[in-house]
Amino acid sequence: MQDRIGETLLTVLDADGRPLVDQDVVVEQQEHAFSFGNIGFDFVPVANGEAELDRLADLWFDVFNTATLPFYWADFEPERDRPRTERLQRTARWFADRGARVKGHPLVWHTLAPDWLRELTTDEVEGVVRARIRREVTDFTPVVDTWDAINEAVIMPVFDNEKHPNAITRLALERGRIATVRLAFQEARAANPTATLLLNDFDMSTAYECLIEGVLEAGIRIDALGLQSHMHQGYWGEERTLATLDRFARYGLPLHMTETTLLSGDLMPPEIDDLNDFQPPSWPSTPDGEQRQADEIVRHYRTLVGHPAVQAITYWGITDVGAWLGAPAGLVRPDGTPKPAYDALRDLIKGEWWLPPTTMRTDQTGHLRVRGFPGDYRLHHDGRTTTFTIPARPTA
Amino acid sequence: MQDRIGETLLTVLDADGRPLVDQDVVVEQQEHAFSFGNIGFDFVPVANGEAELDRLADLWFDVFNTATLPFYWADFEPERDRPRTERLQRTARWFADRGARVKGHPLVWHTLAPDWLRELTTDEVEGVVRARIRREVTDFTPVVDTWDAINEAVIMPVFDNEKHPNAITRLALERGRIATVRLAFQEARAANPTATLLLNDFDMSTAYECLIEGVLEAGIRIDALGLQSHMHQGYWGEERTLATLDRFARYGLPLHMTETTLLSGDLMPPEIDDLNDFQPPSWPSTPDGEQRQADEIVRHYRTLVGHPAVQAITYWGITDVGAWLGAPAGLVRPDGTPKPAYDALRDLIKGEWWLPPTTMRTDQTGHLRVRGFPGDYRLHHDGRTTTFTIPARPTA
Repeated sequence: MQDRIGETLLTVLDADGRPLVDQDVVVEQQEHAFSFGNIGFDFVPVANGEAELDRLADLWFDVFNTATLPFYWADFEPERDRPRTERLQRTARWFADRGARVKGHPLVWHTLAPDWLRELTTDEVEGVVRARIRREVTDFTPVVDTWDAINEAVIMPVFDNEKHPNAITRLALERGRIATVRLAFQEARAANPTATLLLNDFDMSTAYECLIEGVLEAGIRIDALGLQSHMHQGYWGEERTLATLDRFARYGLPLHMTETTLLSGDLMPPEIDDLNDFQPPSWPSTPDGEQRQADEIVRHYRTLVGHPAVQAITYWGITDVGAWLGAPAGLVRPDGTPKPAYDALRDLIKGEWWLPPTTMRTDQTGHLRVRGFPGDYRLHHDGRTTTFTIPARPTA
Repeated sequence: MQDRIGETLLTVLDADGRPLVDQDVVVEQQEHAFSFGNIGFDFVPVANGEAELDRLADLWFDVFNTATLPFYWADFEPERDRPRTERLQRTARWFADRGARVKGHPLVWHTLAPDWLRELTTDEVEGVVRARIRREVTDFTPVVDTWDAINEAVIMPVFDNEKHPNAITRLALERGRIATVRLAFQEARAANPTATLLLNDFDMSTAYECLIEGVLEAGIRIDALGLQSHMHQGYWGEERTLATLDRFARYGLPLHMTETTLLSGDLMPPEIDDLNDFQPPSWPSTPDGEQRQADEIVRHYRTLVGHPAVQAITYWGITDVGAWLGAPAGLVRPDGTPKPAYDALRDLIKGEWWLPPTTMRTDQTGHLRVRGFPGDYRLHHDGRTTTFTIPARPTA
């Protein structure tokens, strides 16, 4: 964790531009450079004036600084050429207005591909996929500046957990994974050259390594590697987590932990292969489970934030209401009260890893050395306020 | 299986060059075009005059037409620059003289890399790997015309089942899988442009698919895909076998089943991940196991030979003596008697799939239509013999 902490040397000047020598000033952190994210799905109705979730919103913004919004194609464009663009634009602006960064998930995925896509030839599918990527990235620039360009490409061409094969699987099967990855990145890059574009996957095996190596060898520029970690079957533990990070860090790309889940109830049996195959009628949060989740979330975030390649962590769920698979994966109970994991995570992100308003003293030449997590800071003196940044430390 | 059977239309001429009209002739198959292979490891001492295994050799040549020879680097060149070339050259010629094709296995592999390699820098490792490939391929041209250019590249850079990491794993880790595959194919291709060069792996998951797609996307020419199938943990069954073949056939390359094992004794427990981790002190062949092996080998070979993409099957072991892991994987018992699986396999390869000397009759214009498995045939008439070939059917 010490490797994460940065430092800056300020020269503090008074109102007349002279060094402020041997004076008390107050310094406080405003924002983490690190992306501490969560899904923003729950707030789509709020941003569109259909619901109020003020308390949940307060809890969200008190810990998180990056919102992942759902661009699942079947929901986004259930009827061809009638995309629900404005609904998500309002949501994206709602988050941005409150100071959060906004990420889109995902531009290409075989799951939740719209039904109307099945009727098209593969050439036509490629055409509408390309157009859909250009449209979404264009329509959400600059508010959404990070995208999962393609999701789960490892399994994409051989995905068979469905009665009627979807058209994205057909595209990936006929064209190949790398060609499909290439078209996703080509279109997204062309629509917003400054966006951060991710390859995202749940497969942490050598398969994802092989895909990444093939994609890089093919000259496709990836900005960050997305690693999912839906731990419905149990916390990975530090050793496995670090080994996974090290394996994927060796490509020299930033790592984003894009989908992080830890349960506060019973675990999913280990023999389940596709997590979607296990959805019990009731899956409650339990007192023991909540303690375990709090313990594990602290251990997991310490491990991740302590690894120099990790630049973002998105927790996958703020509340248990409507959680994926009905699992007790959220940080807030259905009754609106925070679980121990919420408090524990807040204690890290806005406690141990955060500089609250702190009195410091400039030296004889007006210099002030500030150490802290990379991010935006404020300095107050004598009723005046200035801002500064602690940059990320260069990684070796 | 019907799709495999080919046909040729002969015009049979008599000694004076006139059509042989309405006459009996005898047709018999001489050789399969399909490679029915087995390892030739047991015959290295025989070819070098150190042992006699006449009965085992008779059994081998009565069923198989392709020998895989061991080029495991640590055994081949235990002391740097003192390769045991002549020993294997004599063995290769011994097989070729008896009509068998000869394959080399493998040119690059992390397992059984020589110890002296560890001391070298990665640049030096690359240099000696390249030189070793050129040397072996050159020294064994034209007798050895098929090579596993690289073995198990999927796991190569992350292989950690050893105390002291080997230098090939280091090479693959630092340079990447595709760069390592590229150098293997580059050197082997340069040394023998007409050789059949394989990418070979035991990993039948999406990882191997991703590797293949990356390698092909990188423009590396592969002549055939090698699929291992050491079924120490149980026969795959037809469904899994066909699904696997279909997944790998979609790259349009011939499939070689390079390492096929079915046990005639107890199976290895399913929880063993690296097969090398299970080597009981005694692992006998049993009567029940031998019946099961015979049944499964017939089912497996029928499935493989019935698939149009498969061009070669190598069974991994002729005898249980010295079998990998001590497993009862051979087709011949330690006492030299054939197991039921041997007889069953012979009944297919030299029985059901083979044309024995058969009397046929030319038509009114001297034509004769012959149907059979692709391969070399002879035609006898009136004390004279001619040869012809039934070509492989073009695949769709």
